[in-house]
Amino acid sequence: MSGTDHRRGVLPEDHPQGPAIILVEPQLGMNIGTSARAMLNCGLTDLRIVNPRDGWPSEKAMQACSGALLVIENAQLFDTVEDAIADLNYVIATTARDRDMIKTVFKPEAAAAEIHKRNPGGQQNCGIMFGPERSGLDNNAISLCNAMLHVPLNPGFSSLNLAQAVLLVSHAWYAQLVEDVPPVELVSGETVPAKSRDVEHLMRHLEDELEASGFFASKEMQPTTMRNIRNMFGRMDITEQEVRTFHGIISTLSGRKTWKSSRD
Amino acid sequence: MSGTDHRRGVLPEDHPQGPAIILVEPQLGMNIGTSARAMLNCGLTDLRIVNPRDGWPSEKAMQACSGALLVIENAQLFDTVEDAIADLNYVIATTARDRDMIKTVFKPEAAAAEIHKRNPGGQQNCGIMFGPERSGLDNNAISLCNAMLHVPLNPGFSSLNLAQAVLLVSHAWYAQLVEDVPPVELVSGETVPAKSRDVEHLMRHLEDELEASGFFASKEMQPTTMRNIRNMFGRMDITEQEVRTFHGIISTLSGRKTWKSSRD
Repeated sequence: MSGTDHRRGVLPEDHPQGPAIILVEPQLGMNIGTSARAMLNCGLTDLRIVNPRDGWPSEKAMQACSGALLVIENAQLFDTVEDAIADLNYVIATTARDRDMIKTVFKPEAAAAEIHKRNPGGQQNCGIMFGPERSGLDNNAISLCNAMLHVPLNPGFSSLNLAQAVLLVSHAWYAQLVEDVPPVELVSGETVPAKSRDVEHLMRHLEDELEASGFFASKEMQPTTMRNIRNMFGRMDITEQEVRTFHGIISTLSGRKTWKSSRD
Repeated sequence: MSGTDHRRGVLPEDHPQGPAIILVEPQLGMNIGTSARAMLNCGLTDLRIVNPRDGWPSEKAMQACSGALLVIENAQLFDTVEDAIADLNYVIATTARDRDMIKTVFKPEAAAAEIHKRNPGGQQNCGIMFGPERSGLDNNAISLCNAMLHVPLNPGFSSLNLAQAVLLVSHAWYAQLVEDVPPVELVSGETVPAKSRDVEHLMRHLEDELEASGFFASKEMQPTTMRNIRNMFGRMDITEQEVRTFHGIISTLSGRKTWKSSRD
């Protein structure tokens, strides 16, 4: 389908900031390019790439993006998922399989509605995370997110190309943007969820103190236990004030007033 | 995203017949293959191809379909749009541009709802038509359809890959299938719209008689005039009984009781 109006800019001036798209360890540069195209089709421009298999920048991504250079050239590269989402307030993990995690599972439309609700006037930075083409997101990456997203597909043939997944999810956001969006709840100041980096910092504080106090029955089980804890906090939509409060709780309980992460 | 459940068949036994996907003069075999994959992702299997530029069958389509052989191997090839939709009762034309035609223009979700409404238990055969990658559907093809479909996209960057367009539209159908679909109006017997071939037959009857009676001011304007007439009938959702009635009207008015199309 053609029809781009070349007289207009790539995005209207009053275009709102949509969610970041985070591609974790994408394998093919071509898929990064076609994902960038799908994003710009839907008015999204914030592409973040974690540890792409074939390196970055990518000639193949440039070729496959069909002119979505605005997205490719401004893409940010990260070494870890944690870094990629550090400044985001709310992140949704896409997954094709059922995961043994207690998190909200959205369909694309519900995920889009949640993001629109959280980001009127740029209040909360949101993101949607996609895993490697072959395997999808691992449980550790998912545990860093606040909710999950599952695209309903024919269970007998559900393998979706990465860019196709990006398109379906991005388009759900765009379709609601251009609809007469129902009034959204405006949330203010203190009730904004904390940024991911602050929640992660809190988790490290907690883990250090739990470890120091012999909380974990075995070293092997520690990651699983922490993942479950992260999931709980993710569902909580913890605010900045609450993060500070929790640091205080941990410090008080552990008896160590000052804490410096052993993992930084 | 992965997650195909290989233990199950490609489609569940009670899977309903979804709309046909009609690709008119697709240019690239690869795009036919990726469209087939997108269809099967969404439980659609009826692929119809009109006059593909690079011929059929296509090795590139086979390679690009990622295992959606059920769709590729059963795809039907046609020489004309008319033939491809002859047995369909209701066809929606996808278009990226505004057309100077008086037809309903659906968004994907509304188009999907219309198809679900028309096809409970396979009552009406429906189809969704896509044009060539570069140019989209021409006005003649659109005039053979009952309604139009426009995917809302960033107007500054709205060029969508063919398979991406097929996916968005197919997925709107699938998403409503797996939702708790609201009760649909069951329509019965005589109120089913006529099949496309019967409507087209009527149009030819009408055009022959109009031509014979000097209706068209000029030969040049004849196609445009007929297109407008087809659009009117397309919006009408004419039933089989009404088609018969109209043939009778034309015959009566023209004074020729027997008519054999000069175009067959």
